[in-house]
Order: sequence, then C-alpha cells, then structure tokens
Amino acid sequence: MTVHRVRVDALDGEVTLGHREVRHLRVLRLTEGDEVRVFDGKGREALAVIRQLDDARAILALLETVDAAPETPTPITLAVALLKGDKLSDVVRASTELGVTSIQLLSTRFADVPDISAAKLERLRRVAAEASKQSRRAVVPDVLSPIKLADLPLTTQGYVAHPGSSDRLADLLTWTASVTLVSGPEGGFHDDEIDLLLTRGYRAVTLGKRILRAETAPLALLGAIVATGV
Amino acid sequence: MTVHRVRVDALDGEVTLGHREVRHLRVLRLTEGDEVRVFDGKGREALAVIRQLDDARAILALLETVDAAPETPTPITLAVALLKGDKLSDVVRASTELGVTSIQLLSTRFADVPDISAAKLERLRRVAAEASKQSRRAVVPDVLSPIKLADLPLTTQGYVAHPGSSDRLADLLTWTASVTLVSGPEGGFHDDEIDLLLTRGYRAVTLGKRILRAETAPLALLGAIVATGV
Repeated sequence: MTVHRVRVDALDGEVTLGHREVRHLRVLRLTEGDEVRVFDGKGREALAVIRQLDDARAILALLETVDAAPETPTPITLAVALLKGDKLSDVVRASTELGVTSIQLLSTRFADVPDISAAKLERLRRVAAEASKQSRRAVVPDVLSPIKLADLPLTTQGYVAHPGSSDRLADLLTWTASVTLVSGPEGGFHDDEIDLLLTRGYRAVTLGKRILRAETAPLALLGAIVATGV
Repeated sequence: MTVHRVRVDALDGEVTLGHREVRHLRVLRLTEGDEVRVFDGKGREALAVIRQLDDARAILALLETVDAAPETPTPITLAVALLKGDKLSDVVRASTELGVTSIQLLSTRFADVPDISAAKLERLRRVAAEASKQSRRAVVPDVLSPIKLADLPLTTQGYVAHPGSSDRLADLLTWTASVTLVSGPEGGFHDDEIDLLLTRGYRAVTLGKRILRAETAPLALLGAIVATGV
C-alpha cells in the first residue's frame, strides 16, 4: 500500500493543512484516524495521523520520525541552461528523482529562450515538489531564477559535459565537496563559455561520442553519479 | 550549418527518394545541386548531391563516405517493459541518442499495459529513426515486438537495476561481449522475475537509493555507460 505523502512547513507536533491538500486527502478517500506521511522538504519525514478533516482544513498529529530516501553524501547542484517548451519540466522532474539538491537556471549565449516567467518558474518548483514526493525523497530541490554563466560560483567539484573531453566523471568525482553539474542549451556552449567554466574550476567530462539533446545530457551525467551507488 | 540527413535503403551510386523525404527537402528549401547526407541505418553514411527534384521524387548521387557518430564497441540492447502513454517514445528517443543498438520490448508480470498495437510499434520505430538522425548516428536501433522475460537470451553481460544491489555497472562492464540492459515497468519486477534474470546470467546493479520512474531508470543505466567515454 502506498501511504500518501504531504509536504508541510515544519515537523511540529501538530500540522494544519489547507484546501489543496484537503482535496488530495478526500480524493484518496482518507478520513479521520488514517495515517499519512509528512515531510518538510529539508530532509526529514514523519508518520502522522489525521485528527480532524473537514472541507476547509485538516489537522494532523505527528507520530514517529521515519527514514526518507537517502540523499547524496554532499549536495548536487544542476546548473542548466534555459530550454524551450516542456523540456525544463522534464529535466527538473528526472533530475529530482536522480537526487539533485538544487537546480540553478542559467542564461547562456546560445540559450533557446532569453528568460523565464515567474509563472513558469513557479510551475517548475511544483514539478520538483511532486517529483520529490514520487521518488520518496524528503528534500525538495530549489529551482533558482536564472543567473549568467559568469555568475556561477567557483568550484572544486564542477563538471561540464564537453564533446572534446575524454575525462570520466566517475574517475574524478569525490564526495569531499558539493558537486555542480553544468548543462548547456540546445545549441551548446560557446567556446568562450567553456573556457570561462574551466578558469572557474570546472572540469570537462565525456558523455560518449554521440550528440545528446540538451534535455538528455544532464540525466546522463546524473545517471553516471547514481550508478556509483549513492 | 546543419546538413540535412536522409535515411536510405542502401548506399548505392544513385538513390531515389519518395514523397515524404521530398517534402522534407522542400521545407528545407533545398534544390538541385545542394548537398545532403544519406545514411543506411546500419552504420554507414555518405555525402550526396541532389541531381533531380520534383514533386514526386528526388534523385541523389552519392559522393564520398563520411564518418557518422561512432557506435559503442559492442552492441547494446535495451530490454524495456511496456509502459503507458508516451513513456516508451521518450525512452526510445533518449536511449537511441545514448547509443543503444536495439530495443527489445518486454511483457512482465506488473506491466503497465498488456500489449502494444502494430501502429504504436511503428510509431516507436519512427521515433528511433528520427532520434538517430538528430544524434548523427548512422545506425537506427531496431524496436522489437514484445517477448516474455523468460524468453530473453542467456547473457554474460546483462544488467538489471535493482534496489537491493550495491554492485556498480561501471565496475562490471567490459566490451568483450554485447551488452543487455533490462528495465522494468512502473511497478517494478516481481522477485521471481529478478531470480529468473539472475539464473540466466544477468547481474543486479545499483542506481542509487532513490525511487526512479520506469522511464528514468534505463536512461540512468545508459548514462553510466556513455560517461565512460564510449
């Protein structure tokens, strides 16, 4: 049986849910006395029982803390260029399953689209929350407004897939520092952008010899990481 | 500049194209004398020039053979359970980019859908052909009608992602034999099915500690392979 999972602001002794989650509980035919799981989006999860349920709100009483799906040893940021249509949603959904801790949107030279609307950013955050629930994580990755490539922080553990490289991500990866994966737009990065990343500590790594779509490359990088067992 | 790529039956001295490809050529505003690339779906690619172009057909004359995106050292088969909706299309598209040589559909105990229509199978084959063009491969993966899990061939290089395993695909993988990756339905494999695979030579490998969707898991396995640089 799948236990319904509800995101809450904090894991306090008692939690009140509003309209939206009440509707979910009703759809699932849950009633007072039933158990659900609550998670705080920051890594903690607990069992809770529905104490009170009416059309406007639900009150949950927390029982014991439970283990959520474990996180990677250090945080992983996916820095991904703005992509057209639903591609960013697909990347956010799959990369959340694959364990990213935050998703930093990037403006790049050959970006498919120049910017993102507030509504779309909000939609991506909902996708991350939903994917986190589905993959039974208790962490919801942040989806951060676009910054310029030049504003990416310096790193000792940054990787960018580049056709010219033969270095392997799995050979370089350690868990002594947080990890940043950088992934370009459909048109790829400009050579100057790759150079910029290299001077800022990022390493170019291989993803094989075929051309990958912009929405496939970040999942391949993350696949190489999760296949190490973390 | 992107050169238009056209799939042909054979790389002979002269190739005649029908309606469908003629329409593509016209959309791209190509005319007689322009160059295109032709590939045979079996690994060979050549430059060609448009000799004649009218509404009904086009005649191409082949120039020299060119290098297509290289294939993996030995063939990779992705054996994937039947999935609902567009999920199989997504898997076929991305796994083609990631280098699979064939895609064997599987009937499994907890399959999302019992079978696949001839029309949908045909659609998946078109998706494979299109993805092959986009990723500049000259091989179009076969998409094979569903077989039962028990009918998968014996293997010395078969891998199935399994939550219980801590073995790493990249540690086990060699290119001394063809590779088969097995990926389950949304509900996962039954324990008996995993046992069956193990007795037939397949190895269970890890994809980390979170729950992946059925359409994400095969891409993570392939990501781990392409990130080795093949």
